[in-house]
Amino acid sequence: MLGMNKKALAILMRTKMRPLSPASQSKISHMQLSPGGGNKLSTQNANASINTEREFEVVRESMNSAITMNKTEVLDALLNDFSEGYFSLSGENRRKLLLTLAREHDLNRTQVHELIKQYLGLEIPHAEPTNHEEESRLAAFYRVERNLRQALKPMYEVLFERLNTHPGGLKFLSTIRADIVSILEEESIASLRALDSYLKEKLITWLSPAALELHQITWDDPASLLEKIVAYEAVHPISNLIDLKRRLGVGRRCFGYLHSAIPGEPLIFIEVALMKNVAQTIQEVLWDDPPIPECEATCALFYSISSTQPGLKGINLGKFLIKRVIDLVKKDMPNISTFATLSPIPGYMQWLLSKLASVERSGSTFRENILEPEEERSLLDVLQESADGKNAMEIMWNLLTSTNHEWTKSERLISVLEAPLMRLCARYLLKEKKRGRALDSVANFHLQNGAMVGRLNWMADQSEKGLLQSGGIMVNYVYRYIYSPELENIEENAQSYFSTGHIHASCDVSRFVETGRSMM
Amino acid sequence: MLGMNKKALAILMRTKMRPLSPASQSKISHMQLSPGGGNKLSTQNANASINTEREFEVVRESMNSAITMNKTEVLDALLNDFSEGYFSLSGENRRKLLLTLAREHDLNRTQVHELIKQYLGLEIPHAEPTNHEEESRLAAFYRVERNLRQALKPMYEVLFERLNTHPGGLKFLSTIRADIVSILEEESIASLRALDSYLKEKLITWLSPAALELHQITWDDPASLLEKIVAYEAVHPISNLIDLKRRLGVGRRCFGYLHSAIPGEPLIFIEVALMKNVAQTIQEVLWDDPPIPECEATCALFYSISSTQPGLKGINLGKFLIKRVIDLVKKDMPNISTFATLSPIPGYMQWLLSKLASVERSGSTFRENILEPEEERSLLDVLQESADGKNAMEIMWNLLTSTNHEWTKSERLISVLEAPLMRLCARYLLKEKKRGRALDSVANFHLQNGAMVGRLNWMADQSEKGLLQSGGIMVNYVYRYIYSPELENIEENAQSYFSTGHIHASCDVSRFVETGRSMM
Repeated sequence: MLGMNKKALAILMRTKMRPLSPASQSKISHMQLSPGGGNKLSTQNANASINTEREFEVVRESMNSAITMNKTEVLDALLNDFSEGYFSLSGENRRKLLLTLAREHDLNRTQVHELIKQYLGLEIPHAEPTNHEEESRLAAFYRVERNLRQALKPMYEVLFERLNTHPGGLKFLSTIRADIVSILEEESIASLRALDSYLKEKLITWLSPAALELHQITWDDPASLLEKIVAYEAVHPISNLIDLKRRLGVGRRCFGYLHSAIPGEPLIFIEVALMKNVAQTIQEVLWDDPPIPECEATCALFYSISSTQPGLKGINLGKFLIKRVIDLVKKDMPNISTFATLSPIPGYMQWLLSKLASVERSGSTFRENILEPEEERSLLDVLQESADGKNAMEIMWNLLTSTNHEWTKSERLISVLEAPLMRLCARYLLKEKKRGRALDSVANFHLQNGAMVGRLNWMADQSEKGLLQSGGIMVNYVYRYIYSPELENIEENAQSYFSTGHIHASCDVSRFVETGRSMM
Repeated sequence: MLGMNKKALAILMRTKMRPLSPASQSKISHMQLSPGGGNKLSTQNANASINTEREFEVVRESMNSAITMNKTEVLDALLNDFSEGYFSLSGENRRKLLLTLAREHDLNRTQVHELIKQYLGLEIPHAEPTNHEEESRLAAFYRVERNLRQALKPMYEVLFERLNTHPGGLKFLSTIRADIVSILEEESIASLRALDSYLKEKLITWLSPAALELHQITWDDPASLLEKIVAYEAVHPISNLIDLKRRLGVGRRCFGYLHSAIPGEPLIFIEVALMKNVAQTIQEVLWDDPPIPECEATCALFYSISSTQPGLKGINLGKFLIKRVIDLVKKDMPNISTFATLSPIPGYMQWLLSKLASVERSGSTFRENILEPEEERSLLDVLQESADGKNAMEIMWNLLTSTNHEWTKSERLISVLEAPLMRLCARYLLKEKKRGRALDSVANFHLQNGAMVGRLNWMADQSEKGLLQSGGIMVNYVYRYIYSPELENIEENAQSYFSTGHIHASCDVSRFVETGRSMM
């Protein structure tokens, strides 16, 4: 074990201790190859374009064979060729190839129509046959139904299934899906969208929680695994070795979901701090406070959850991970009674700034004043010298967009901005929706898992990223208090969020958005 | 590690070191509960039958809720209730419940018909739309197609999916399937057969090799795992601790496939002996010869492969296991050039005896004499005193069915029976088919994996079981000689076996069944 640690240490010392840029991540794993990006071809010269065309044909050929070939020994080599070939393709050629797959290896619709004709020709037999003839009529009916079901499966399913059982294939499928997702973000292509939803369904089956192993990541894990944690940590970058070691040490936990076909690399991982109280700032979790003795902890704080595979977008592994971690921690540490997050609010500033700007642009007659009168007054009071005939919203916009977040260096500005920023943040989290769901992606994630919005924390993340995303505000989503039986049932929150879009929030947060005057 | 071994030892010492009877196996795991067996109910009194009826209704209720319930937190409890309830049901009630599932939670055929109508109403749009309108027509078409595909999924899929993600659920599903398989062996019920083939397909997806972990089982493994090896070893029962330790020691390997949802229990495992030559008798593998130094081995002999889950019947995990073990051994030990089995021939005696008996029963005019003239003569010569006007086939039948296999105690009888038994065994293996496949189940397994019939071994397994099954004959199936390039491609054998039923055999074995006179 000691040997392992030394080796891990040696390798980690060489590793850059910050998240890698997309380009350098691709060196760690094929997963990260940046996909799509259609217009690269146009900048290349004609010669290169002939070469790419030839290259494309070779990969297309291997893909076709990988679908139609029946000798599985040859198949292994074919699938290797195909995946290697795929990785060598330009973004434009990948797009072309995926379209070929979606369009040319779709259903055999003539066959579907024939089977439908056959199916409609049969009367639905009685499900409980009373004699042998009825029994065999029923059997025939099931057979046709089964054939129809089979015929409705696109031919590209064969490729997916084959890749799934091929070494490295599951990971390759996740790369392919990452490319598809990125293409569909740029343009809407019906056949590719149909392929994407089919592949997503398959991935959901293959990555069912039953096939995933919950692994506690510790300082004793191989450096190759820890390196992935450093590379993929998406919420609070790991700044150095001491930072990483602290996140895996006393008073801390880190759990990941591993799949046996993607060894040594968690698909998703979560970082937990064991604390006396629900933390209000990320500083106290990551830097300021030394960990408390674990036996004194009453709160498990989830302060970071990162998914490592862009190809698994829309597949909610996090929900199962959080549920299992809560169960595990509850069992191991009965003193822990609170499970909560300390989460970023990634979309708040973007929303607020565009709101301030659009109100500004619209005429004065119908414009919504998103500030309360007191807030407006305080802003104008404080900034009267520089106000210069501008209105309060304009001033606020200027403050929030100032270089280096100047406002955070003035006690006075901080105190005058706190009221409107906190109140509008609550409004953003509780009221701003998109297709019935919370506009903020992190909020939507925790709400659909059944958490409630627990508390907003002022100046909770003063990092560049934190100020840029949310003016430094962070939120605690609360999963479960053991002593509040009405909150025991996470699923009821999730259910009502799904069906009505209702966002469950504590009084603390709700009061911000109560109608009538602000309570602050 | 030493502590582990001591503990393992202590537990193993208490374990009965022989395969458990089906009844006592059920104490190890629910998996083994013997299912079906319809007629138990009739022997119970009316009171008990009312109780069982009530019990049945409770389980049926929990099953229905487990399918329709949408609150997943409640769902966990429901699925637990359902699986506990299921295990408490009598065979007859399980049968009733499974029929309810197959019939009442089938498709919504009204919906299917509606969607088909909608589907047929749409013309198939061009796959490469040229304008926005065509694009959205195509999207609508895919949507309807997807809905139809969805509607063709039986409702019981929800139960399967939910159980699969529920702790212990995958194993429970395998129990359910074991029960279904056993019911279908007794009677053919179309709706249950449709359910079975659907569940089997699901299990194949969930147990894809990508989701399985290849684990080398050693003496350092937990006793709870080794206990399973002892309990499930289906070919050559493990007689005591020394036997088990030897099978895991020097010159031996044991590999199993583990699934993370069924921890501590391989789904299938294979035992390998590293030898100088392909063994001719099981005695030399299990008992007689001390293992050779591993560096001297040139042959990996697969002498036992056991699947532990009757519910996975028809799902060929063994093929993948053998392939991976061959790859692994080849990589680790480049000196190994031969991969072969030493296999039982479980159906030979049963086939031969019924052949001898049926020839006997049929009239003398058209009867097939399955013995060669020389064989007949030797038999009559040796047994002239007791022949008593009987013909050679009758004599052979009597010898083979004599109590305690008397014939194996006489050198003379052994030598006179060798020629016909070996020749007929080759015929049984190479020529006797059922639906185009080898009649013998073990032969069919290895042939469909791409092995060839290599050599028949006389008096290779003189255990009671060996004599009863195959008159003591064993067979070597050969997977691959490194120095015979024409045999390199296992898949080609498998392919030609699948498509034409052709059984690939060595000259050694083929000559037994050549037309014309026997070569012996």
